[in-house]
Amino acid sequence: MFTKTVRSVVFAFIICPLVAFTQDTAAQRALKHPRFQAVQEFIAKDHDRLVRETIQITEIEAPPFKEAKRAKAYAEMLRQSGLPDVDIDAEGNVIGIRRGTGSGPLIAIAAHLDTVFPEGTNVKVRREGTKLYAPGVGDNSRALAVLLIMIRALDAAKIQTASDILFIGNVGEEGPGDLRGMKYLFQRGSYKDRIKMFISLDPFGPGNHITNAGVGSKRFRVTFKGPGGHSFGSFGQVSPAYALGNAITKLSRMPVPTRPRTTFNVGVIGGGTSVNSIPFESWMDVDIRSETKEELDKAVDTFTRLMNEAVVEENRIRSTGQGRIEVEVKLIGDRPFGQTAIGSPIVLTAAAVIDSFGMSPIYGLSSTDSNIPMNMGIPAITLESGGTGGRNHTLDEWIDMEKASSVRGINVATGALLALAGIQ
Amino acid sequence: MFTKTVRSVVFAFIICPLVAFTQDTAAQRALKHPRFQAVQEFIAKDHDRLVRETIQITEIEAPPFKEAKRAKAYAEMLRQSGLPDVDIDAEGNVIGIRRGTGSGPLIAIAAHLDTVFPEGTNVKVRREGTKLYAPGVGDNSRALAVLLIMIRALDAAKIQTASDILFIGNVGEEGPGDLRGMKYLFQRGSYKDRIKMFISLDPFGPGNHITNAGVGSKRFRVTFKGPGGHSFGSFGQVSPAYALGNAITKLSRMPVPTRPRTTFNVGVIGGGTSVNSIPFESWMDVDIRSETKEELDKAVDTFTRLMNEAVVEENRIRSTGQGRIEVEVKLIGDRPFGQTAIGSPIVLTAAAVIDSFGMSPIYGLSSTDSNIPMNMGIPAITLESGGTGGRNHTLDEWIDMEKASSVRGINVATGALLALAGIQ
Repeated sequence: MFTKTVRSVVFAFIICPLVAFTQDTAAQRALKHPRFQAVQEFIAKDHDRLVRETIQITEIEAPPFKEAKRAKAYAEMLRQSGLPDVDIDAEGNVIGIRRGTGSGPLIAIAAHLDTVFPEGTNVKVRREGTKLYAPGVGDNSRALAVLLIMIRALDAAKIQTASDILFIGNVGEEGPGDLRGMKYLFQRGSYKDRIKMFISLDPFGPGNHITNAGVGSKRFRVTFKGPGGHSFGSFGQVSPAYALGNAITKLSRMPVPTRPRTTFNVGVIGGGTSVNSIPFESWMDVDIRSETKEELDKAVDTFTRLMNEAVVEENRIRSTGQGRIEVEVKLIGDRPFGQTAIGSPIVLTAAAVIDSFGMSPIYGLSSTDSNIPMNMGIPAITLESGGTGGRNHTLDEWIDMEKASSVRGINVATGALLALAGIQ
Repeated sequence: MFTKTVRSVVFAFIICPLVAFTQDTAAQRALKHPRFQAVQEFIAKDHDRLVRETIQITEIEAPPFKEAKRAKAYAEMLRQSGLPDVDIDAEGNVIGIRRGTGSGPLIAIAAHLDTVFPEGTNVKVRREGTKLYAPGVGDNSRALAVLLIMIRALDAAKIQTASDILFIGNVGEEGPGDLRGMKYLFQRGSYKDRIKMFISLDPFGPGNHITNAGVGSKRFRVTFKGPGGHSFGSFGQVSPAYALGNAITKLSRMPVPTRPRTTFNVGVIGGGTSVNSIPFESWMDVDIRSETKEELDKAVDTFTRLMNEAVVEENRIRSTGQGRIEVEVKLIGDRPFGQTAIGSPIVLTAAAVIDSFGMSPIYGLSSTDSNIPMNMGIPAITLESGGTGGRNHTLDEWIDMEKASSVRGINVATGALLALAGIQ
């Protein structure tokens, strides 16, 4: 995930003073509960294990659609952290419920299992002082480990909640996964229609960001096809590689507005059989996002036009004697827009908890697992898992597990969860 | 392989009348030998098996560097065709010798095992009448099958040659293989310094083309590297994908002379981890060829400059706040120039045989296995394996096994081999 921040604190507390007051009270009740003190003490004491588990999770590869190995290990880690009845659903999500008294609404809290990195990526963690370096370590291994320490802390402090809490390690948050884990959970799985509130922990960060709106995105596989041929013998014939190169260049210069923030990306490219053959196919995967549906649609229209222009130009510049270039633009991802109002109880509760920890809540929009419930009208937010870090989605990804900042972030997330779930 | 044709028949016979006369005699002696009649009769009779074996070979995948499975099967086919002592050398070439009286120079005849197609390509042969459709069927399965029928025909006709003949199914002719099979054979293997003449059969064709010159080529892996990042969060930062797109576009417009024929090709592209990440690496494999060293060097210089321009432009257009784009241009293939003089005995003999079959020899230059011996000053030519066909290096590759044309091509190649090896 990535959050675009909007400083709307003032807005929230001016528009919704009464609701804010109520949520503030709920938050204070949870945070001042003597057992929450015990929760925090446990988290501080158990922090070394969190570090070890973050490393352990990171070092099990979890490319999109290949989360099974990490899922199996994570299910076992949930069990060892005290969660009874952990299952893996038909889509591959790891799910376990911690029963409350049943007098509150069912709350789900999730961290995604998948990373953006393909099979074979070196996921060995390098440790330098309190810093951990590895692809995926902060997005989202740390959050997965945070769910584990939360469960242990709740048990250690003998916390009984009003709500049942569903702990989830889900598949398909990144890229091609297209939120398949969430789509299954909310639209087809056994908890469909039963989850009343949703928190996603994603990724690291101090704990004061609340993602309450989901950026819409469309993803495309663009495939240029042509007759192919021998590099020397068919020189001068059209090539899908040149059409693709031209298409990338055109896309890279596509004008998009800064506000509403609208972006594009060429993520993966491929195609061709050998250095001495004109490819018969060259392709790229493109991500287009915007804060508004209108700008997203506009960007997609322009993008589609540019792809066709690249084809026309290639067929004009070189010979089509052995065949023409054609293009297929296929939708491979469609993440819905969604929003949880800043004045809604879930957002106000999280904001009140953040306030109590001496930070100022920062609202933002992003594309996360929360997009799905948000789009369905189910109150949902994405919170940070604590600590600091950077360079996620790159091989240089890192997080700092420095204890004070790490623990505070976990306390914020756990406090928000308990304020919503109600401590009995 | 691909041959550029040069009609130099007149040249050959004006410049070298005496040598031509001698070779013509050698050719006539072989072709008029009663046992060569038996050879041709056998080839016509055994043609159905040739078709079956062409299919059988084609349907065993043989991507560059992954020829081992086909090599093993081919070694067994050579044995079953009557060649004793078939071995696979350390590079993966299948080699078997057919002993002569030892009174002639050692002659090697080879067909390459490898195709340009990657693992997983559908290599099932589709048959329509006398036509066979499949990737690699004509380049070079047919030639491999022709070596088998040759051996059987020589045995059936009880042909005893003066020369020992080395039959070879070799690795590494295509693209990335970079002629590794031939480099090993001529520079390191146990037949190093012992092969005095070389014929490559590659690919299909009526039999009247003689490739007597090797086009030089250089191949490069061009890798653009950058900091990577999140598609939404780091939007506006430099991207190796955009640098690559720009580089492809620039290369596609690079001016090259028609004469001497000079070509370039973007063969394979790749890079990137997921649709929603800015890649940290995007790459392409480029092939540059020319008929002259001077033009090849010139094209390589321009190409290198264009790659650097693409980097400079990307670093100028977008933000380098998280890091800059860099490029690595790595030489991955270097095929030497080479030539066997049109007036040399091996070329004149082949030309005389072609004449005898009522065709006119057409000389040409190409990049084939013969480049290696040519470059070392060992007389070498590349001949066709007979039949007709088209679209090699594409998924639509096909050959026509129509008997008359197919048999004639085999007879030409076998006749040339026997004229050089001398029938006792």
